[in-house]
Amino acid sequence: MNTEVIYLDHAAATPVDAKVLAAMQPFFSDVFYNPSAPYSPAVQVRREYEAAKQVIARAIGAKSDDLVITAGATESINLAFSGSTGHVITSNIEHHAVLAAAKRLDATFVESDEKGIISAEKIKAAITPETQLVSIALANNELGTIQPLRDIAEVVRHERERRLAEGVHTPIYLHSDASQGVGQLDVNVARLGVDMLTLNAAKVYGPKQVGLLWAASSVQLEPTIVGGGQERGLRSGTENVAGVIGFAKAMELASEHRKYEADRLHKLRDSLQTRLTEAFPEAVLSGNLKHRLAGHLHISFPHLDAERVLFALEMRGVLVATGSACAANKGTRSHVLTAIGLAPEVADGSLRLTLGHLSNDENIARAGDIIIEEIQKEYQRSTR
Amino acid sequence: MNTEVIYLDHAAATPVDAKVLAAMQPFFSDVFYNPSAPYSPAVQVRREYEAAKQVIARAIGAKSDDLVITAGATESINLAFSGSTGHVITSNIEHHAVLAAAKRLDATFVESDEKGIISAEKIKAAITPETQLVSIALANNELGTIQPLRDIAEVVRHERERRLAEGVHTPIYLHSDASQGVGQLDVNVARLGVDMLTLNAAKVYGPKQVGLLWAASSVQLEPTIVGGGQERGLRSGTENVAGVIGFAKAMELASEHRKYEADRLHKLRDSLQTRLTEAFPEAVLSGNLKHRLAGHLHISFPHLDAERVLFALEMRGVLVATGSACAANKGTRSHVLTAIGLAPEVADGSLRLTLGHLSNDENIARAGDIIIEEIQKEYQRSTR
Repeated sequence: MNTEVIYLDHAAATPVDAKVLAAMQPFFSDVFYNPSAPYSPAVQVRREYEAAKQVIARAIGAKSDDLVITAGATESINLAFSGSTGHVITSNIEHHAVLAAAKRLDATFVESDEKGIISAEKIKAAITPETQLVSIALANNELGTIQPLRDIAEVVRHERERRLAEGVHTPIYLHSDASQGVGQLDVNVARLGVDMLTLNAAKVYGPKQVGLLWAASSVQLEPTIVGGGQERGLRSGTENVAGVIGFAKAMELASEHRKYEADRLHKLRDSLQTRLTEAFPEAVLSGNLKHRLAGHLHISFPHLDAERVLFALEMRGVLVATGSACAANKGTRSHVLTAIGLAPEVADGSLRLTLGHLSNDENIARAGDIIIEEIQKEYQRSTR
Repeated sequence: MNTEVIYLDHAAATPVDAKVLAAMQPFFSDVFYNPSAPYSPAVQVRREYEAAKQVIARAIGAKSDDLVITAGATESINLAFSGSTGHVITSNIEHHAVLAAAKRLDATFVESDEKGIISAEKIKAAITPETQLVSIALANNELGTIQPLRDIAEVVRHERERRLAEGVHTPIYLHSDASQGVGQLDVNVARLGVDMLTLNAAKVYGPKQVGLLWAASSVQLEPTIVGGGQERGLRSGTENVAGVIGFAKAMELASEHRKYEADRLHKLRDSLQTRLTEAFPEAVLSGNLKHRLAGHLHISFPHLDAERVLFALEMRGVLVATGSACAANKGTRSHVLTAIGLAPEVADGSLRLTLGHLSNDENIARAGDIIIEEIQKEYQRSTR
């Protein structure tokens, strides 16, 4: 395929930024020492590792000591659930990792509204005296809908204070997977009001299989992986030095360019959205259009087969998603689209277009042309 | 420090081989797609990921389907223990990860002999009707002693057959962490007779935080990390594509050069050992000198303070370990040296010298000179 690739699936994976890779390079073959070794070149590696954690911590307004570096968001989410023995609350539109972790416990799955919003009121109504954890992603990975996390945090805080006043010692924490938001939103743990936060380097132009769980020092967790006692004893194993150095550079770049980038993606996304909805007035936009990640566009073409469209677009070099990558690969209808009440004939014609660093005026305009052409062809074909 | 570095701590960390890094490079920023995405560039990434797993599997005589890729040996070990609810058997000289995982269960810690060997007879004696797992490392990471794993496998096999004959359904498995052996020994799961095997890319000139657990298809495990269902459902999370590509190249190189490299290191190690024991007849060699990793030399200088020696050597550019890196960093005496009955005044004067790719005739000869000089100085100082 000689066609130039136009990548519209930044929510599934991001390329490692050239500056990130450059920062990582020395730590593979040159400064490769085990950070737990006692000689000074290794101690220097330890210092650079800790300094990288501080850069990451600063980017989210946290203390470095409260970070646990993991092998990605899925592991972080599992760790966030590790301290809960009682009841947990999450929603029916969360990532598979949250759903799977919740299902191991006594869980309530609060229902999303039709825009993919989880209301603080519903969370409040779901809280029982046994509730120990509420876990809601900052932004939904399929729809891009940004959740009212501060309101949810208020609900959790009130419940905590109520218990305290009553002398009840059952803890209640709020965890949020902010992996999808971090390059575009202000992700500050204090301002969000969360007790735990998950991030994933791979979603922010850092390396794959590097992530973190931030947990306020008051949060009690159970180690998922035991051994040498690294990462506060919560996650043993020789540290991923290169990975964390890369994660830090990625977070630094994300913080630096966030406002500009969010604004840029917002305009690009809106231009694409306008073109597609003008060309296809019957198209359905999903998610909360006002509170949505800047690069996210979820659009459904009723009665079309999105998988056919995906492959037609791929032939033209345009790479898109039909739902979250994991679900798509298994050929099942997205649980998120079912949860927001999209009719099957609408859900099955859904494309998730996520813009990012690789997007620009030129290739988004061209993607618009190609998508319109291919969708038109598909409609002609299906009505023949 | 302008002194050329002579690295004698290959058991703690290895530099990523240039060929390994070259193999990984395209997968960071160019072929960065999520292997679960449906478009063909992502499908191609999935294929390359699976092909890399097959290369790794072939190197240990296993089927690729039976590999679970993890973030390193510690996670693999935790996963190996995940299926056990009853009694487990390990030894008192295992890696911290094994000790910690075993301590979560009803565990017997079989005692090592004075050479660091765990005898099959002691394992046999420790087996109870409730024993579900025996976990013994292929080679001890401090002493380099190679365990009689085939004999231990025989014991486990007999117990399994005995249970089968009696209609008892309690499973019993043998797990071995072969991380320290893979570049120097024939690590073939069938020939070793194990049911589970742990490997770590970081010990074999691959990237850090990449490892695997091989488990025979009959072995029942519990997922440590739940989510998207990757890696047989045992270990969810977007795959570490670059890391696994690197791991495969590292295993390929290790298999290719193993015999030559083991022979080369054997000679280098013996030359260093001879020089040191000739210069210091009171020095104590630990481990089983006949069944020992080719690059391993554990030598104790009674009444010396190994930490002082370590720093003196470091000033001359020679990087060595005093015990396993984790323990060293915490300033505690190595549990392995205590277990083999080394007197405190001997144990505290111990150096672990581990040779590897960075070792050659010239720098090992020079390391010998420097170590002899510095040990002499320390002895003079301490007897003044």
